[in-house]
Amino acid sequence: MADTGPALAVDIGGTKLAVGLVEPAGRVLSRQQVPTPVSLDAELLWRTLDVLISAVLAEAGLRPDELAGCGCGCGGPMEWPSGVVSPLNIPGWRRFPLRDRLRQRLGQIPVRVHNDAICMVAAEHWLGAGRGYDNVLGMVVSTGVGGGLVLDGRLVQGASGNAGHIGHVVVDPDTGPPCACGGRGCLEAIARGPALVSWAQQQGWRTGQADATARELADDGARGHPIGLAAMHRAGRALGIAIASAASLCDLQVVSVGGGLSQAGRLLFDPLEEFFHVHARLDFTRDVQVVPAALGISAGLVGAAAMIFKADRYWLED
Amino acid sequence: MADTGPALAVDIGGTKLAVGLVEPAGRVLSRQQVPTPVSLDAELLWRTLDVLISAVLAEAGLRPDELAGCGCGCGGPMEWPSGVVSPLNIPGWRRFPLRDRLRQRLGQIPVRVHNDAICMVAAEHWLGAGRGYDNVLGMVVSTGVGGGLVLDGRLVQGASGNAGHIGHVVVDPDTGPPCACGGRGCLEAIARGPALVSWAQQQGWRTGQADATARELADDGARGHPIGLAAMHRAGRALGIAIASAASLCDLQVVSVGGGLSQAGRLLFDPLEEFFHVHARLDFTRDVQVVPAALGISAGLVGAAAMIFKADRYWLED
Repeated sequence: MADTGPALAVDIGGTKLAVGLVEPAGRVLSRQQVPTPVSLDAELLWRTLDVLISAVLAEAGLRPDELAGCGCGCGGPMEWPSGVVSPLNIPGWRRFPLRDRLRQRLGQIPVRVHNDAICMVAAEHWLGAGRGYDNVLGMVVSTGVGGGLVLDGRLVQGASGNAGHIGHVVVDPDTGPPCACGGRGCLEAIARGPALVSWAQQQGWRTGQADATARELADDGARGHPIGLAAMHRAGRALGIAIASAASLCDLQVVSVGGGLSQAGRLLFDPLEEFFHVHARLDFTRDVQVVPAALGISAGLVGAAAMIFKADRYWLED
Repeated sequence: MADTGPALAVDIGGTKLAVGLVEPAGRVLSRQQVPTPVSLDAELLWRTLDVLISAVLAEAGLRPDELAGCGCGCGGPMEWPSGVVSPLNIPGWRRFPLRDRLRQRLGQIPVRVHNDAICMVAAEHWLGAGRGYDNVLGMVVSTGVGGGLVLDGRLVQGASGNAGHIGHVVVDPDTGPPCACGGRGCLEAIARGPALVSWAQQQGWRTGQADATARELADDGARGHPIGLAAMHRAGRALGIAIASAASLCDLQVVSVGGGLSQAGRLLFDPLEEFFHVHARLDFTRDVQVVPAALGISAGLVGAAAMIFKADRYWLED
């Protein structure tokens, strides 16, 4: 193990597998990715990842023992810190011992696996929108609504590594839609991309198109389509209410909002801010900054590397 | 200063001023209290407290420099950690430099002032309902709804010492009542004692009685009065929803519920648990224990002493 070497960073999602090298200051030196082969079984999925790791190391001419460590973000749920993963969008991995397999592959270097949303938040706090603040909620609004919490300058793990799960904060207990979790009126049940698409189609938007996406819905909104606009308002309202609750409960300074839906820009952030300010009225909540995530596509790899280079703030346990 | 001496513990609320001595293991050795003279001006209020401190020290035959320190819980809001207090229910103190005054009074021993709800949570985590757990939300449901958060084994301060403020988590954004904070549908706007009384009187309960209390309302509910029962159901529902949101956002293990309204027992906890379980459906939230606070009247003094004896967990800054 080389303390001053780069970290191997791995980002595993339902859409892509990405592997890269990240230097101690957080710059991404190289990255390679492939679409996630979601139909494969557990071992073939692992072999796909294994090949990608070999390619990145070979390209750089590095042996595993020249790395500072390996950080990995993976879709949840997972058992933490054991890194036994069951990513919702990768059915082939159910209770897959990802951390142990990476350890076997890489030898005696630190290997740390955390939720991909947690990694993105660590990245935003380390080098992005939350830089310089001690109390930050990072959110990822996409197919799901995830997040992570940095409080008093340290990533909060919680009882099972799930702290920051803002997607299941309740914003509409009576009239909100049922949520996949079994509850009702959760933020995620309203604001996740597929839920917005489904709601818009019920209102008459692109009713015949089975593969309509939240991006198309946001684009139509940007062109003035009333249902597209209403859908972004609906998402923004739910986000604003949930963020106001979180700001009060956790005494935050900054909330960074990333993920695909955040690309909708003002269309989403205008109603979000409107409803945030309706509900965040205390002296210590009203000035909380709600801002777009700053790091974009590299956040997953940077955050995975943060688990190695800034373990005292973001990992905390081993 | 004597590291092994007792701590002087001070608990300042809108109803009473209490001062006591607490030994390092958390046992309350002595206590004296007086009703809070809320009509007095800042200096006379201070002198009342000063006399009480002198009485407790004299009774024990102790000089200030024989104390391990002084911990003080006071009603919020306050500036933390400077301990400049403006307790809502004590109008005579507005930006009163309580921490500095206690320091002047007591000399060169550690003096630490925190929110009274935070102190109660520290007490419950140290020696009460949250003992042995690393992720605990402590709540005080009374004239207001306050709380504090212990996450990853440490009290969370947040940006301004206000973390744990669950009273302003939104539980009814559309149809909920306006809140004193300026928002709408906050937990506190529904579940604080005076709000319940006001709601019950609108439904026809004791309409002529200007000084009706939440305790009378709960007692009437216990005797089967339908509006009393409905009021406890209303409070329990709001608490259950807010606690479910907090359990998900913060990945909790235990929520302790104290304060006057928690004395209503099953009348409050049954609907609370019903609605908590409607909304807390994730693997990591459904088994969160929601329990009555365990320490009762001594929690304020024990928690104030925790700021001295367990500063690494509950105070963190100086």
